[in-house]
Amino acid sequence: MSPSKQPASTSFKAPDSSRLQLDEQGRLRHFLTTEGLSKDTLIEIMDAAESFSSVGNQAVKKVPVLRGKTIVNLFFENSTRTRTTFELAAKRLSADVINLNIATSAAAKGESILDTIRNLEAMHADMFVVRHSDSGAAHFIARHVAPHVSVINAGDGQHAHPTQAMLDMFTIRRVKKQFTNLKVAIIGDILHSRVARSQIHALNTLGAKEVRVIAPKTLLPSDTNSLGVHVYGDLKTGLKGVDVIVMLRLQRERMSGALLPSEHEYFQCFGLTEEKLAYAKPDVMVMHPGPINRGVEMDAAVADGKLSVILQQVANGIAVRMAVMTLTLGPNRTVIDADNY
Amino acid sequence: MSPSKQPASTSFKAPDSSRLQLDEQGRLRHFLTTEGLSKDTLIEIMDAAESFSSVGNQAVKKVPVLRGKTIVNLFFENSTRTRTTFELAAKRLSADVINLNIATSAAAKGESILDTIRNLEAMHADMFVVRHSDSGAAHFIARHVAPHVSVINAGDGQHAHPTQAMLDMFTIRRVKKQFTNLKVAIIGDILHSRVARSQIHALNTLGAKEVRVIAPKTLLPSDTNSLGVHVYGDLKTGLKGVDVIVMLRLQRERMSGALLPSEHEYFQCFGLTEEKLAYAKPDVMVMHPGPINRGVEMDAAVADGKLSVILQQVANGIAVRMAVMTLTLGPNRTVIDADNY
Amino acid sequence: MSPSKQPASTSFKAPDSSRLQLDEQGRLRHFLTTEGLSKDTLIEIMDAAESFSSVGNQAVKKVPVLRGKTIVNLFFENSTRTRTTFELAAKRLSADVINLNIATSAAAKGESILDTIRNLEAMHADMFVVRHSDSGAAHFIARHVAPHVSVINAGDGQHAHPTQAMLDMFTIRRVKKQFTNLKVAIIGDILHSRVARSQIHALNTLGAKEVRVIAPKTLLPSDTNSLGVHVYGDLKTGLKGVDVIVMLRLQRERMSGALLPSEHEYFQCFGLTEEKLAYAKPDVMVMHPGPINRGVEMDAAVADGKLSVILQQVANGIAVRMAVMTLTLGPNRTVIDADNY
Repeated sequence: MSPSKQPASTSFKAPDSSRLQLDEQGRLRHFLTTEGLSKDTLIEIMDAAESFSSVGNQAVKKVPVLRGKTIVNLFFENSTRTRTTFELAAKRLSADVINLNIATSAAAKGESILDTIRNLEAMHADMFVVRHSDSGAAHFIARHVAPHVSVINAGDGQHAHPTQAMLDMFTIRRVKKQFTNLKVAIIGDILHSRVARSQIHALNTLGAKEVRVIAPKTLLPSDTNSLGVHVYGDLKTGLKGVDVIVMLRLQRERMSGALLPSEHEYFQCFGLTEEKLAYAKPDVMVMHPGPINRGVEMDAAVADGKLSVILQQVANGIAVRMAVMTLTLGPNRTVIDADNY
Repeated sequence: MSPSKQPASTSFKAPDSSRLQLDEQGRLRHFLTTEGLSKDTLIEIMDAAESFSSVGNQAVKKVPVLRGKTIVNLFFENSTRTRTTFELAAKRLSADVINLNIATSAAAKGESILDTIRNLEAMHADMFVVRHSDSGAAHFIARHVAPHVSVINAGDGQHAHPTQAMLDMFTIRRVKKQFTNLKVAIIGDILHSRVARSQIHALNTLGAKEVRVIAPKTLLPSDTNSLGVHVYGDLKTGLKGVDVIVMLRLQRERMSGALLPSEHEYFQCFGLTEEKLAYAKPDVMVMHPGPINRGVEMDAAVADGKLSVILQQVANGIAVRMAVMTLTLGPNRTVIDADNY
Repeated sequence: MSPSKQPASTSFKAPDSSRLQLDEQGRLRHFLTTEGLSKDTLIEIMDAAESFSSVGNQAVKKVPVLRGKTIVNLFFENSTRTRTTFELAAKRLSADVINLNIATSAAAKGESILDTIRNLEAMHADMFVVRHSDSGAAHFIARHVAPHVSVINAGDGQHAHPTQAMLDMFTIRRVKKQFTNLKVAIIGDILHSRVARSQIHALNTLGAKEVRVIAPKTLLPSDTNSLGVHVYGDLKTGLKGVDVIVMLRLQRERMSGALLPSEHEYFQCFGLTEEKLAYAKPDVMVMHPGPINRGVEMDAAVADGKLSVILQQVANGIAVRMAVMTLTLGPNRTVIDADNY
């Protein structure tokens, strides 16, 4: 993608998210984006994740909450790592999981996606976990599914990655207990990051004191003002007094373009070291969505250091995905339409 | 495959199907082809499918019928769509499923297929769901498996696709209640279609009043007489008074050969539109095995119209596969041979 | 790999196996190699396999021993066959299985393997079944996993394949009842065989009367003396009076190098025929890890003959893998560390 291309310019129509994600009773039906969801809904997700976070430590890591449900991992963009987290979450909820990897060809757009969806619905799929390289793909599918089907966005283009954002919120809450006193700095390629967008919406909704983004100008979106963030071009100034550092993963393919000079130079300016970490608060927590490029986004000493909560993020990711699956698909949400097929 | 090549000319010996499919008590042991099966057996499959068709609408879409059985999807030809339907059917029956995709190389024939089969049998596989690009492959395997193992043909070359045919029969019965008053027209590439062959056998066995095939001469097999069908080269004449229309999927790769001039020309002559649909009975049902090429086999208006039962076919496909798996492998069929291994 | 390259020269450090595999109470924690394990431990594995070997013949082939455990098949080297046996064993123990195929790229070594491991541990994986083309990979992972995680070596380079060796031991014990009176001949490419190494250690520990290796000089390792085997370059002499013949699979890619002249010539010298079989004891048992190259390692008449136990090996492979999974991961082994994540 060229640097001038805007994230929203895709083959799918722009979403009307908040209405789409909730059912008539205001309960979560799909989980597509953190944008437009209420503080109560975000807290409900974290509370549910809290109740599931002990399942991973039980001798029998399984609860029968979604037994007999069919969850389809519909991955138009390959991501073994993300697919594994959803597959594990579904299996620990006792659901049946079908993994479908579908190449993002011309044939995997618009009408033909709908044919795929209609077929899987006819097979009584209950949930689609959608990963797609185009922004808006999960919304597109959510607008067209049958009433009994839920859609979870597992990352769409440069638009949103809401389960990643919510596992980050959950991780912050477990460590810091609250959001209203927190200064949070997000560092890296904000422009192309679906993770950053989803995090910023969630942090603002949850009432974080201040959300900062730290990035070179070439990696900042043009709409930073409307996002409600403070922009810093310098790491040391930006880190001053922050409670939480959220590193973004640098896509190495950007390096070949005009956006970034070199890994080495990026690390010099925006890479996190123990020395630079000292500018933040002493009890700052360091986050990263993984996988880490050690020596690019941060030193190994920081990644594996005391202040890093990176592996807790991974563990919390399973609990948050179990929470979102259960809230959208739980017994009280299931609509049985026996006569329709 | 060149147009002159006959469907039966493959590397596997011609089958003696009817005896092979039944056990000594006359019960279904394998499900390889609709050819030679009695009307009672076909009705038994549809009755079982009827009992399973409600499972998809239950809150817990699972029955413990095949719990602890091991079903191997042995796909020598890739088909995510068909594999998914068998995987779902098996999981809803609580069986364990192993997916094996095996390239159809020289190494995947004859002796080496038998080695694969013997190994999986030794691992106590209970069922092979076989998809292969060579006609006769499923029969070949069925002739060589151990007494406790069942084989289901999920499509072999241009020979048979019996679960597709039976889900079509089941769909017709659910809508029309009976077969003896029905005129059914099958439209498209009859020559290369394993689906058409299996449908024709089933319709004749179930006593359909008349089975017609409508196709250009180049797409008709030479043995239409022995198949017990009426041949039409013209769509309008062929559709007159029919109760059921079964469209076949057009394999686009045929277009490059001498068999067909162009998609556009094919659609002009044999593509289904609302206008042409008017030649059939007003309550005609329109079927297609999917995935549809809209604008080639039929208009979008027909595919998505009121007379289309295409999505019901998909839903019924799960129930029919559950039925066939249970009948061939059910508790009363299982032979335990504890001393053999 | 060139013939001069030694098996142990890899990117991973040499293992200290015996200590690594046992926990502080001396119970099996990982299963990486047969080398250094006590006779009692090997017998314990076979006794557990004996108790599981009936599960495959039950109508419901499932026991709830590892219900709610998460077993990850971590295959850096592709092997559908071996992966299937571990997947089946895990499913029959009611565990949840995640299959991960990871290319052995530069990125799949050292630090980045550790990142993968740390992530899967954070997701509360309980067991890694590791297959890797580098000798020592499973040991490397075992040295770095969290206290509650077990590692099973499913084949690492030319080093070890302990579950294959133990299914062979189990098969021998089921037929011959004991080891102390047995003369065992291992035939083929000893130099490159992880299977042979694991078998030799197990046979010597279990007190076999004599272990012979029969191979052309180019396929013998330099350390045969330290392995405790008798070396024969001639098949007829080597077979004299043996109770058990273990054939190794010939890697055909070796043929193109200088190690072997041709398949035909190999078969002439080291291929097993009924005629050559007559040199061994009349009740000799013939084993092969599969898949067999008929006409290279042995005649079809021998492979499928009365003295062959090749399919029993496959069946026993499931039971042995269930045994090893249960012993390393069973309820009494599980450490719950609820506060760590």
